Amino acid sequence: MRTFDKSYSLLDRASKVVPGGIPGHQSPTLLVFGSSPCYVERAEGARFWDIDGNEYIDYMCAYGPMVLGYNHPKVEQAARAQGQMCDTGNLPTQRYVELAERLVGIVPIADWAIFGKNGSDVTTYACRVARAHTGRNKIIMAEGSYHGIGAWCTPFETGITPEERVNMLPFQYNDTEEFKRLLEANSQEIAGVILTPFRHEAFHDSEMPAPGFLETVRKTCDDIGAVFVVDDVRAGFRMHMGGSLESFGVKPDLICFSKALGNGHPISACVGKDGLKDAASQVFFTGSFFSAAVPMAAALATLDEMEAIGSVDLMYERGEMLKDGMLDQADEHGQEVNYSGPVTIPFMTFAGEDGWEKSKLFCKECYDRGVFFHPFHNWFISAAHTEEDIKKTLEATNAAFKRVKQEMG
Amino acid sequence: MRTFDKSYSLLDRASKVVPGGIPGHQSPTLLVFGSSPCYVERAEGARFWDIDGNEYIDYMCAYGPMVLGYNHPKVEQAARAQGQMCDTGNLPTQRYVELAERLVGIVPIADWAIFGKNGSDVTTYACRVARAHTGRNKIIMAEGSYHGIGAWCTPFETGITPEERVNMLPFQYNDTEEFKRLLEANSQEIAGVILTPFRHEAFHDSEMPAPGFLETVRKTCDDIGAVFVVDDVRAGFRMHMGGSLESFGVKPDLICFSKALGNGHPISACVGKDGLKDAASQVFFTGSFFSAAVPMAAALATLDEMEAIGSVDLMYERGEMLKDGMLDQADEHGQEVNYSGPVTIPFMTFAGEDGWEKSKLFCKECYDRGVFFHPFHNWFISAAHTEEDIKKTLEATNAAFKRVKQEMG
Repeated sequence: MRTFDKSYSLLDRASKVVPGGIPGHQSPTLLVFGSSPCYVERAEGARFWDIDGNEYIDYMCAYGPMVLGYNHPKVEQAARAQGQMCDTGNLPTQRYVELAERLVGIVPIADWAIFGKNGSDVTTYACRVARAHTGRNKIIMAEGSYHGIGAWCTPFETGITPEERVNMLPFQYNDTEEFKRLLEANSQEIAGVILTPFRHEAFHDSEMPAPGFLETVRKTCDDIGAVFVVDDVRAGFRMHMGGSLESFGVKPDLICFSKALGNGHPISACVGKDGLKDAASQVFFTGSFFSAAVPMAAALATLDEMEAIGSVDLMYERGEMLKDGMLDQADEHGQEVNYSGPVTIPFMTFAGEDGWEKSKLFCKECYDRGVFFHPFHNWFISAAHTEEDIKKTLEATNAAFKRVKQEMG
Repeated sequence: MRTFDKSYSLLDRASKVVPGGIPGHQSPTLLVFGSSPCYVERAEGARFWDIDGNEYIDYMCAYGPMVLGYNHPKVEQAARAQGQMCDTGNLPTQRYVELAERLVGIVPIADWAIFGKNGSDVTTYACRVARAHTGRNKIIMAEGSYHGIGAWCTPFETGITPEERVNMLPFQYNDTEEFKRLLEANSQEIAGVILTPFRHEAFHDSEMPAPGFLETVRKTCDDIGAVFVVDDVRAGFRMHMGGSLESFGVKPDLICFSKALGNGHPISACVGKDGLKDAASQVFFTGSFFSAAVPMAAALATLDEMEAIGSVDLMYERGEMLKDGMLDQADEHGQEVNYSGPVTIPFMTFAGEDGWEKSKLFCKECYDRGVFFHPFHNWFISAAHTEEDIKKTLEATNAAFKRVKQEMG
């Protein structure tokens, strides 16, 4: 039985000087409060250690960034070398151009790239480019989709004015008919559509795009001259190196990347087609650290290593192994589960649950056995997960399923 | 005569794959196009080298972040040590709590702190906290003030909808009477006021707060229960360690920091009074890299070093030396100039200019002599500027003034 005394004692200390103790998606109230750690001390490869010294095989990958594993030697070496030259400067470094060229080389739809820090920076920027390009204001998005903390999309509306969301038109992800109706009814006003490559918001099973859905979005956008934006912040480089929609053979106009791009270094990117470049250059997009060179050197090294080791295929293999193992175990322990999403970005819930009690117990039992899953948010496989890691993980999940059956049937 | 061949050749290459070549505030069209560098290769202390190998004593400090000088050994050592433990993780590290405690200890009005990446993140967050706290929507801001690229404030409106700005009420910075009228006319709707500690937007002489101006803002905010937000992103830690308004003896409710806080590492902070903490905890504020530990370790080391060496006093000394020297030279060469702003964040323009031709020529002549000023944007002194640097700088500025007189009278 692990203890989290240092975690919760530091959380108490934090609560005095930090609103909510730990703000945002890392809040312990969004994990298994009392039974999950609150602070990390160290991380390496596919593992991390919390401040109580508990070790975990990690399936959250810092909520996505760690695609090659924590503290990756080649990435960190490139970052350190660049840091000794220049990071944040008066002007960009050559890394900016090299990274743009690299993304243009890797991502089929990309003719250009621009860089920010946060996923929110680029999803918001992409909407502005769509507006600048079309001279229209309305943007279609899927209800509940997470695109960051922009006023137009943040999931919690406290502090947001109604006017900031009035140009967003929501529809149900995958509802092709509703999408077509919405688009046709507003065709003269629609600047664009922003979608994640599959439905992956928290507290919800993931949903892959329905057959024909993405193709309809592409075609109807073309029909009315609207811009098709893909928010690939979460899924990027875990489904396909060229943008996740390449998996489905559909070409968007703009793609937003972040998370995995720099293997933990803070960087985001918007890439797009040539036809959008003029509009893209007219939207003011800047920040003190947007052209910082260390995350760009890290991203170049991350892209190199992902290509060199074939990280997407590797993660699919490991992801299949985890999925097959867990589904067998669920069956064996009489648990009906929904295992959803691409296997590289999987999520598992217990079917027919009213609350999330089985999910919470399952995760708690995994924490106690040194495996870190999330009860409410999709997980992430990295290229650092070895077969041995998956085998050890499956020992923990087997015990966790067994306990869930014992306690909750 | 310096050449910038590599800079402009790389800019050509960039133009193919980056919208605008170099986006945002670093665009060469915002410097002296053709006569200023476009890319930096290396930076150290108060100096940087562009990719053509030209060396400069730097008075832009990466537009603010470099308060102790580039590549500061103590800051980088702290960053490296933290990087080997954990940077971006599933959870924050103890550094988050330590940095919040540290800011609470340094900044008199601060009872709490929360961290983001960009200045824009925290200025936008502060407006949301003001709205959450008051249940009102309107925010007063000074016309033309730069608070980042939020839709509510970005200086270039391409891609922005009118609705996103409808709750902003602009007035002229320092116009106390207009401010009072605006506030009284809308008192039931005003959530807060956001101001920079002095007026410092680009393409404009800086203006210190008029006597009584900040006091009036403080008092009238109190009268109607509105929140007084200071955007200290640019000026923070160059006027006072406790927030720039401490220089004037006025206490705001929320302060936004970024730039200098991490000496170049990407971090921003919003600090506030206890009475705002509930509202602050209700506004969703998150990002993949917001709790990354390396910039926090860097910020802790930066704060330590700033306190240890008395960086604010040191920068005021150097700043006075530069100002005195340049004003003497201007006088000697018959140039009437406006030398504005705090001496640690100075700006100089040529009085009565219709365009910016003298400013551009002056800067060009300085570039040719290895000194980097900006023709349109305020400058920054750092603690790395030595007396020797200022002396060398004054040799360059003397020659530049002389040339301005020769060429333009």
